[in-house]
Amino acid sequence: MKRVNWGLVGGGEGSQIGFAHRAGAVLDGKFRFVAGAMDVDPNRSREYGIRLGLSPDRAYGDWKEMLSGERDRRDRPGLVTVATPNNTHFEIASAFLKAGFHVLCEKPMTLTVEDAIELDACARSCNRICAVNYGYSGYPMVRQMKAMVSSGEIGRVRVVVAEFAGGFMADEADDDNPRVRWRFDPDQAGASAVSLDLGIHALHMACFVTGQRVTRVSSDFAHGVEGRRLEDDSLTAFRMSGGTIGRLWASGIAIGRTHGLTLQVFGSAGGLRWRQEHPNQLESTPLNGSTRILERGAHDLSPAAKRAGRVTIGHPEGMPFAFANIYRDLGDVIMSGMNGTDVDPLALDYPDSSDGLHSLQVVFAMVRSAREGGRWRQVVGA
Amino acid sequence: MKRVNWGLVGGGEGSQIGFAHRAGAVLDGKFRFVAGAMDVDPNRSREYGIRLGLSPDRAYGDWKEMLSGERDRRDRPGLVTVATPNNTHFEIASAFLKAGFHVLCEKPMTLTVEDAIELDACARSCNRICAVNYGYSGYPMVRQMKAMVSSGEIGRVRVVVAEFAGGFMADEADDDNPRVRWRFDPDQAGASAVSLDLGIHALHMACFVTGQRVTRVSSDFAHGVEGRRLEDDSLTAFRMSGGTIGRLWASGIAIGRTHGLTLQVFGSAGGLRWRQEHPNQLESTPLNGSTRILERGAHDLSPAAKRAGRVTIGHPEGMPFAFANIYRDLGDVIMSGMNGTDVDPLALDYPDSSDGLHSLQVVFAMVRSAREGGRWRQVVGA
Amino acid sequence: MKRVNWGLVGGGEGSQIGFAHRAGAVLDGKFRFVAGAMDVDPNRSREYGIRLGLSPDRAYGDWKEMLSGERDRRDRPGLVTVATPNNTHFEIASAFLKAGFHVLCEKPMTLTVEDAIELDACARSCNRICAVNYGYSGYPMVRQMKAMVSSGEIGRVRVVVAEFAGGFMADEADDDNPRVRWRFDPDQAGASAVSLDLGIHALHMACFVTGQRVTRVSSDFAHGVEGRRLEDDSLTAFRMSGGTIGRLWASGIAIGRTHGLTLQVFGSAGGLRWRQEHPNQLESTPLNGSTRILERGAHDLSPAAKRAGRVTIGHPEGMPFAFANIYRDLGDVIMSGMNGTDVDPLALDYPDSSDGLHSLQVVFAMVRSAREGGRWRQVVGA
Amino acid sequence: MKRVNWGLVGGGEGSQIGFAHRAGAVLDGKFRFVAGAMDVDPNRSREYGIRLGLSPDRAYGDWKEMLSGERDRRDRPGLVTVATPNNTHFEIASAFLKAGFHVLCEKPMTLTVEDAIELDACARSCNRICAVNYGYSGYPMVRQMKAMVSSGEIGRVRVVVAEFAGGFMADEADDDNPRVRWRFDPDQAGASAVSLDLGIHALHMACFVTGQRVTRVSSDFAHGVEGRRLEDDSLTAFRMSGGTIGRLWASGIAIGRTHGLTLQVFGSAGGLRWRQEHPNQLESTPLNGSTRILERGAHDLSPAAKRAGRVTIGHPEGMPFAFANIYRDLGDVIMSGMNGTDVDPLALDYPDSSDGLHSLQVVFAMVRSAREGGRWRQVVGA
Repeated sequence: MKRVNWGLVGGGEGSQIGFAHRAGAVLDGKFRFVAGAMDVDPNRSREYGIRLGLSPDRAYGDWKEMLSGERDRRDRPGLVTVATPNNTHFEIASAFLKAGFHVLCEKPMTLTVEDAIELDACARSCNRICAVNYGYSGYPMVRQMKAMVSSGEIGRVRVVVAEFAGGFMADEADDDNPRVRWRFDPDQAGASAVSLDLGIHALHMACFVTGQRVTRVSSDFAHGVEGRRLEDDSLTAFRMSGGTIGRLWASGIAIGRTHGLTLQVFGSAGGLRWRQEHPNQLESTPLNGSTRILERGAHDLSPAAKRAGRVTIGHPEGMPFAFANIYRDLGDVIMSGMNGTDVDPLALDYPDSSDGLHSLQVVFAMVRSAREGGRWRQVVGA
Repeated sequence: MKRVNWGLVGGGEGSQIGFAHRAGAVLDGKFRFVAGAMDVDPNRSREYGIRLGLSPDRAYGDWKEMLSGERDRRDRPGLVTVATPNNTHFEIASAFLKAGFHVLCEKPMTLTVEDAIELDACARSCNRICAVNYGYSGYPMVRQMKAMVSSGEIGRVRVVVAEFAGGFMADEADDDNPRVRWRFDPDQAGASAVSLDLGIHALHMACFVTGQRVTRVSSDFAHGVEGRRLEDDSLTAFRMSGGTIGRLWASGIAIGRTHGLTLQVFGSAGGLRWRQEHPNQLESTPLNGSTRILERGAHDLSPAAKRAGRVTIGHPEGMPFAFANIYRDLGDVIMSGMNGTDVDPLALDYPDSSDGLHSLQVVFAMVRSAREGGRWRQVVGA
Repeated sequence: MKRVNWGLVGGGEGSQIGFAHRAGAVLDGKFRFVAGAMDVDPNRSREYGIRLGLSPDRAYGDWKEMLSGERDRRDRPGLVTVATPNNTHFEIASAFLKAGFHVLCEKPMTLTVEDAIELDACARSCNRICAVNYGYSGYPMVRQMKAMVSSGEIGRVRVVVAEFAGGFMADEADDDNPRVRWRFDPDQAGASAVSLDLGIHALHMACFVTGQRVTRVSSDFAHGVEGRRLEDDSLTAFRMSGGTIGRLWASGIAIGRTHGLTLQVFGSAGGLRWRQEHPNQLESTPLNGSTRILERGAHDLSPAAKRAGRVTIGHPEGMPFAFANIYRDLGDVIMSGMNGTDVDPLALDYPDSSDGLHSLQVVFAMVRSAREGGRWRQVVGA
Repeated sequence: MKRVNWGLVGGGEGSQIGFAHRAGAVLDGKFRFVAGAMDVDPNRSREYGIRLGLSPDRAYGDWKEMLSGERDRRDRPGLVTVATPNNTHFEIASAFLKAGFHVLCEKPMTLTVEDAIELDACARSCNRICAVNYGYSGYPMVRQMKAMVSSGEIGRVRVVVAEFAGGFMADEADDDNPRVRWRFDPDQAGASAVSLDLGIHALHMACFVTGQRVTRVSSDFAHGVEGRRLEDDSLTAFRMSGGTIGRLWASGIAIGRTHGLTLQVFGSAGGLRWRQEHPNQLESTPLNGSTRILERGAHDLSPAAKRAGRVTIGHPEGMPFAFANIYRDLGDVIMSGMNGTDVDPLALDYPDSSDGLHSLQVVFAMVRSAREGGRWRQVVGA
């Protein structure tokens, strides 16, 4: 099996995101890890790359070194993942795109809409992939939701309810810790805390599953922990391009909700409900009928859901496998490009820079709406 | 055991609400059903009363007949329940209060805030109880939530999230049916559909459990079924008198959510979550700790929760028993009045006309906010 | 509505079972509580009866007094419930049956098979009802299971798995308490502890839902708490008259299982699963299909399940309502007898003395099998 | 990072088990896949190996070729996984062990106790690891259960209840299919069907978590599908070396239970419950207390559970990661051996040939007990 060479910027030792990317990339054998610059400290970066099995000349001290070292190699990476701190995504992703690499960028794609517009345009003009790691969209049962909505199984989509509620911002003692405090400092974190960090995932899910864009928003940003300058709890009403009504709740102070990313979609002919914490089940209720529990791995799922699964029914698959599905999509698309073969249309569902841009445009519209007392704001570009 | 005589207006044959009130009233033996006017048709009303065991002279044809027949009896009802259509609550409840009866009124207490103000004032000036049947507040584990909040167990209450989502307004074919269509006709139903019908329950729960009033709201009213003139899905951000942030979602088109009344309360020291469909469990998570499943009937619950339970742990109690707890409260309070004894403070948690008034004031503020594009509106009187 | 007069023996003040019987009897208005002897102390017994609203001449000091006081009254009870300690069931139930009363007897019906045979024969020869309160069989979704099995919806019934696991015998400190210790003393409790107390419920459920009798058993009786002389945990393999394979686990030391009565039935065309702690849902899985969650109150349930429900879908009903269904069945049957009308066939599913006898025969066969090292034993009479 | 070279026998294209092993081995970067003989057809075997990235000289046509090709290489595998059909495990595993390779063998380790004894002895005399892939024991929350039991947190272990119930043998139409039919043919499948295939996993879990061996069994083997010659449903009572009472149910005809592997452990001070289908949660109930939901990734888990996890709390990990934990253990142990360093004691919990032997001895004692009508049988060697 031919593989796509792969490089990683960021995601250094001990970081969960680094593990998740490496696992996601290698799991299906579609990628070969060939180059990396993973730590902010050049020596640690090189040393860690070597320990992970990179050849010493491709274990770089920083991303610029990596870019210049790799750009002219014949065996250079077919895909470079950017998993660095958020404020560096724009610069690094742009540089690799311009040098002709396909890129997978962590979310949020950039810190400003302006940068996102430029990066999206850059990807288009370079004719390169700029994928964005909204990794939850890789879960098989999320793909199943999308397929059911798309096929009309739940009829016209009336309402989508997206939540991302957790308690990891709930301990006020953490605000004495600079590693937490910066999140709520507009000078460091930008215009939003929980909405940009968590809410944006739920928002993308709503768009991904319905196949619609958000057109208008009305938001309330609030903080439950005294003294914070950015929101740790936000509520948003929205409307979508296909006429769907939207509801979004994002909270970092919801003690007990652990990692409460959920999506509910209600149409004229049925409703669907999914929870990230138990991702292998999807509840599906037809109008006037009983709820059915659809199981990942079942024989009657959509082709998209089947393609996104790996082990048999009843064996749970977890979050890193959702990530791996984004990589599998990218691997298939890049390989098709290399081989000049037709690409599997099911491989094209990965989130890209247009999704990264749109979700940022929505969050910034939410920020404006919240500042203006909940006034409905159009989403630019939608 | 002495009992309180009890009368019922409305809740005729085949109505669920009639059954629930009769069951709730008699379950603990605190009330004796002595008088009723249950059907809009006088003959059926009398006949049904007799069949339910009323003596023929107290099985009335309508509420006015009942009022004049009962007001001067020495054995007249100590409590009269008003379970008639919403647009008659005000007139009937007022009349009985003025005649010196204690009243339990179905929700919504009235159709306008003006009527609610007058009814509430009437109850005060008559020195009579005017309870309002927010029956879900009678669930033992809802009382447990209130007790835990009140005792400070979850710290300062930061966020309350209340939902009432079901699918019973989801079938657009029903809109051809006059029995459904009126709900979405402002001329018949008033200013709101799902918010006034379902949302108000969740709203009352948020107030009941936190012990706070709603002070400001920002709402989005929408309809997912084309052609409706009132909302079948609403989202509201709110603030409470104690500084708590609020979120309320009410939907009648959420296929699969059956009877999705839920309440989540998040404080600085812990979070609580409760679902009406599985009411005997309460999830409680301390800050940085594991979620505990509190069970109705457990030995370490609050006195308020213990008082509200009847059977041993692991034996589920259902919705009619929650109703019965409102009756038990009222029975205890009325009996104390009759006997001149001290009332158990735990009996005083039943919802009354001030709650009925407040929840209407909130819903009408929501209506105004929705009409004004989500602008924050003060809740009058809060 | 005419009512059946009703009398209660046992179930004194503070006893849960007394409350459950009184609530079950009066809930639907089919019975009028007219006579009782509820406490072992004659004075308390009379005083408590009066407090519960009995007329003083029918508030008796003991059951014999009640029998002689009631037997010749024209308004004597149409049904007498026997909810006294287990070792008195036989004598009291026999006496009332012989005097021509219909009887509802708490479980276990008797302490020995010999007594059960005699009581069952007595009921037959007297042509009186001797119902036995396997109250869990009154749950609407248990009736739904029975109806689905009976209609062939799950095909040939291959396996039934019944469990009753709880932790209320788990605290070894309780064994110092005479109120617990007697349970494990063969001289006081008879041949079995947990199997006769809990297991027998699960066993009856297996028979009730499949419509079969148990023919053979192989049991292991064990005790997890040292020093006990009777079993607190038992496992039984069995076979049924229709060829179904059976598995039964009963445990009193299963900490965390609260009131873990569950039933699973697997046929050639589908499987069903039900849990007492969440009794309003039934999981139903067709062969090679997805699991459906059937909800009490849904429009497409069997007539038997619909008849056993009271409130609309999504409003939970609890255990006392299951009891009440046994009473409703008995009320309908007795009223039909009084009126000479045809009885609703759906009213005939209450458990009676033949069920009470059979379940005892099974438990005693289990005792013998356990004593003989798990040797398969025929169930006498099956 | 140095890696252990790894070879794979069996697990050819399209097999789930092959994917799971390859994913498990490479996930943490501890192994490098260097040699394989994966298909029964030599040409396909070589071709598939090359496609998976093996160098052509190490992509073998069969295991004998692989053994002779690898045995004298300096870079030969440090671990060889045997994932071939069950009847070949003994021969292949023995051959590799004798040639000095460490081996990970799929379950059941062998088809007879005699072979298992010999293989276990072979591993000991060769001083090589012969691990057995009871992969479910790699789940973090199963390790947590073991740690809690071992630390005494639930007191003396009274009862363990192990289930493995699924519906994949439920469709009788499949019995016309030779790929299914052989399972129930004693000439092909040996002495047991579901007990040896599914039950043995649950059995191993019971031993793994309690740290005890099974000493005695009493079994009932039954078939729910007519015409089968081996059991598709079995029930076993057992006793363990530490005095624990055991219950085991294995079924292949439990429609709706999907992959129903569960373990419940009840001690004198608490109870634990775990389900494979939702493996990231563990229910823990202290005596007389409320149930707590322990979450994989929580900060207060045991070191063994923490070591077995990879991503943060609330992000589910699935079955392949459990497999990967067995590989991680083996990688650490083998690497320690190569480096002459101390091994992490937490790495020693992988199941080995003594576990493989014991679980087979138990299943064969179950077979004998079932044949002898449930008579209690000693487990040889226990």
